[in-house]
Amino acid sequence: MNITCDNDRFYMQQAIELAKLGRFTTTPNPNVGCIIVKDNQIIGKGYHKKAGQPHAEVYALQMAGDEAKDSTAYVTLEPCSHFGRTPPCADALIKAQLKRVVIAMQDPNPTVAGNGIKRLSDAGIEVTVGVLTEQAEELNKGFLKRMRTGMPYVQLKLATSLDGKIAMASGESKWITSSVARQDVQKFRAQSCCILSTRATVQSDNASLTVRDAELPDDIKQIYSSEKIRQPVRIIIDSQNKLTGNENIFKQLGETWIVRKQDMPVTKPNTKLIIESSANKNINLTKLFSLLANNNQINSIWVEAGAHLAGALIEQDLVDELIIYYAPKLLGHNAKDMCILPNLQNLSMAPKFRVKSATMVGEDLRVILKK
Amino acid sequence: MNITCDNDRFYMQQAIELAKLGRFTTTPNPNVGCIIVKDNQIIGKGYHKKAGQPHAEVYALQMAGDEAKDSTAYVTLEPCSHFGRTPPCADALIKAQLKRVVIAMQDPNPTVAGNGIKRLSDAGIEVTVGVLTEQAEELNKGFLKRMRTGMPYVQLKLATSLDGKIAMASGESKWITSSVARQDVQKFRAQSCCILSTRATVQSDNASLTVRDAELPDDIKQIYSSEKIRQPVRIIIDSQNKLTGNENIFKQLGETWIVRKQDMPVTKPNTKLIIESSANKNINLTKLFSLLANNNQINSIWVEAGAHLAGALIEQDLVDELIIYYAPKLLGHNAKDMCILPNLQNLSMAPKFRVKSATMVGEDLRVILKK
Repeated sequence: MNITCDNDRFYMQQAIELAKLGRFTTTPNPNVGCIIVKDNQIIGKGYHKKAGQPHAEVYALQMAGDEAKDSTAYVTLEPCSHFGRTPPCADALIKAQLKRVVIAMQDPNPTVAGNGIKRLSDAGIEVTVGVLTEQAEELNKGFLKRMRTGMPYVQLKLATSLDGKIAMASGESKWITSSVARQDVQKFRAQSCCILSTRATVQSDNASLTVRDAELPDDIKQIYSSEKIRQPVRIIIDSQNKLTGNENIFKQLGETWIVRKQDMPVTKPNTKLIIESSANKNINLTKLFSLLANNNQINSIWVEAGAHLAGALIEQDLVDELIIYYAPKLLGHNAKDMCILPNLQNLSMAPKFRVKSATMVGEDLRVILKK
Repeated sequence: MNITCDNDRFYMQQAIELAKLGRFTTTPNPNVGCIIVKDNQIIGKGYHKKAGQPHAEVYALQMAGDEAKDSTAYVTLEPCSHFGRTPPCADALIKAQLKRVVIAMQDPNPTVAGNGIKRLSDAGIEVTVGVLTEQAEELNKGFLKRMRTGMPYVQLKLATSLDGKIAMASGESKWITSSVARQDVQKFRAQSCCILSTRATVQSDNASLTVRDAELPDDIKQIYSSEKIRQPVRIIIDSQNKLTGNENIFKQLGETWIVRKQDMPVTKPNTKLIIESSANKNINLTKLFSLLANNNQINSIWVEAGAHLAGALIEQDLVDELIIYYAPKLLGHNAKDMCILPNLQNLSMAPKFRVKSATMVGEDLRVILKK
């Protein structure tokens, strides 16, 4: 019994590693990996590369061919049971006459939600669900949150000194963290559906907010050539209609979406306007995020902005994950704070997180915290 | 050759672990451990427990007895060559007819400084110096700095939110970090020669700045009963002569030293006055520290105070080590900053450190940085 269990984890771990290869490209689809095993030999493997292209199971079954009969498949997410752009994977596994399917976790997508498991089971295939579930959850935290709640998974990135400062009083901020930390940020950007920022950041830092493929991991570069690298959508909050279209950001590859209160379009190629027209003079962030998840299939938002947006997101409890890069220096009390929280009155109300990891990135310390 | 070398490190590691048992009590002496080995058997071990009591080598030789002849000793610091409160350890090792002595590092104490090594060598004993030197340095960073520079080793402790805040605007600060982190602080306090604070902290927090022996590690409690636990001297900066003697701190076990610009004594038992009478109206911290090292044999200073003293120490480049406890919360821009640096004008001038470790302490993150 224990041996089976260890075997299951062993193969599922490999399926998860495979799934990760798609993490820069599958959005809005989840990352999925599949391993097919017979007599303790891997006879098939595959992962989902890009929306519209075949699912992980299809690649793995293709590789296994007729050998798939009586084999065991390890899939990081419940196989789909519906006709989307591709036929249902559950049916493909049934057709290939598998003996057993091990699934890391059920798919909360309402079009699947246990139907894939039921379909396999009804066809007489032995199904095991719940192997390395935590890792499988982590793999698709954006997709899963959107499916479960209708809201995207929000990661707020901050680059600060030890004393929580993001710029000198003069505004000088280039650079607080090291170039290694800034490269690390590239990998997070590349995995996200979109990068959220503000008009102020775009204009004052002349930010491009793109993914520079040269800074991606080598295993990814081997699979995706630079022109296949996906540029996350840049979403810029511009509630006062101040963006002119001449900013650096509009000269970059990929799309830029501008969020305004009213219809004042910026006529640039690859630019789209999102109107968030609630009564408040500021953009209603909860409404915006809901709209992005439900209308635009945005699973995850990577936020790079100033202390005001950071504070607003925190106060409105919209942040799932904080990623803080601490440079090992002190900037003192005159420097600019990393987080504006105007409504925080006493200590017991302070927004709290849980430290998930603390890792050296070059000379800086990267701390990841979750809600 | 490699085997010998690994053996040397193996035994020296044990000598270092032994030395650590004295870390709460030996001040102003260094921590030293000694292991005596013959035919790959440990036949003697000892460590220095307290100033005035025998050195590590004496205990180890006592245990080894006549077997010490032709054995190898591992000592974490060069054996002394002078008559202090105890006779020279080098002579004891020679008299016991050891074959070889392995020493982690030379003692920079001018009364030793290579003389112990020379004495052993002159007597025909094979001497190896430089095994696990880095660990041996870490063991006595206070003592070594004082011997080398005439200044104490300064550790500045800060307990802060993720955004570098140490209190709400209202002054509310109990508690930002968790009780586990506060217990961790106890261990650092207990290892230091003294605890430095200010009149403001002593009065506003009603701080006692003592070591509560219940919170010390079990191995230490087994060796030192609670009454044998050393209370580090509390040194309080009171440049405006505002301490009355009625504060909580004067009711505690151990000594309190008050630092003033002029002779206005506080008549309390176990209280001493230190006059730092330089022309400046503030206490000259460099002068004070030099005086503490040279007149009072203070090896190390553990600083627990507010943002002003923290900033002054940083600006005057007097901090060797920062110990920051980050509570996983955000207090926002209105809260109080951890470090007042009035003279910092631009980013390139920002005081820089190197991260040595980042460790979870309960729910908080402890980051240790060195200059």
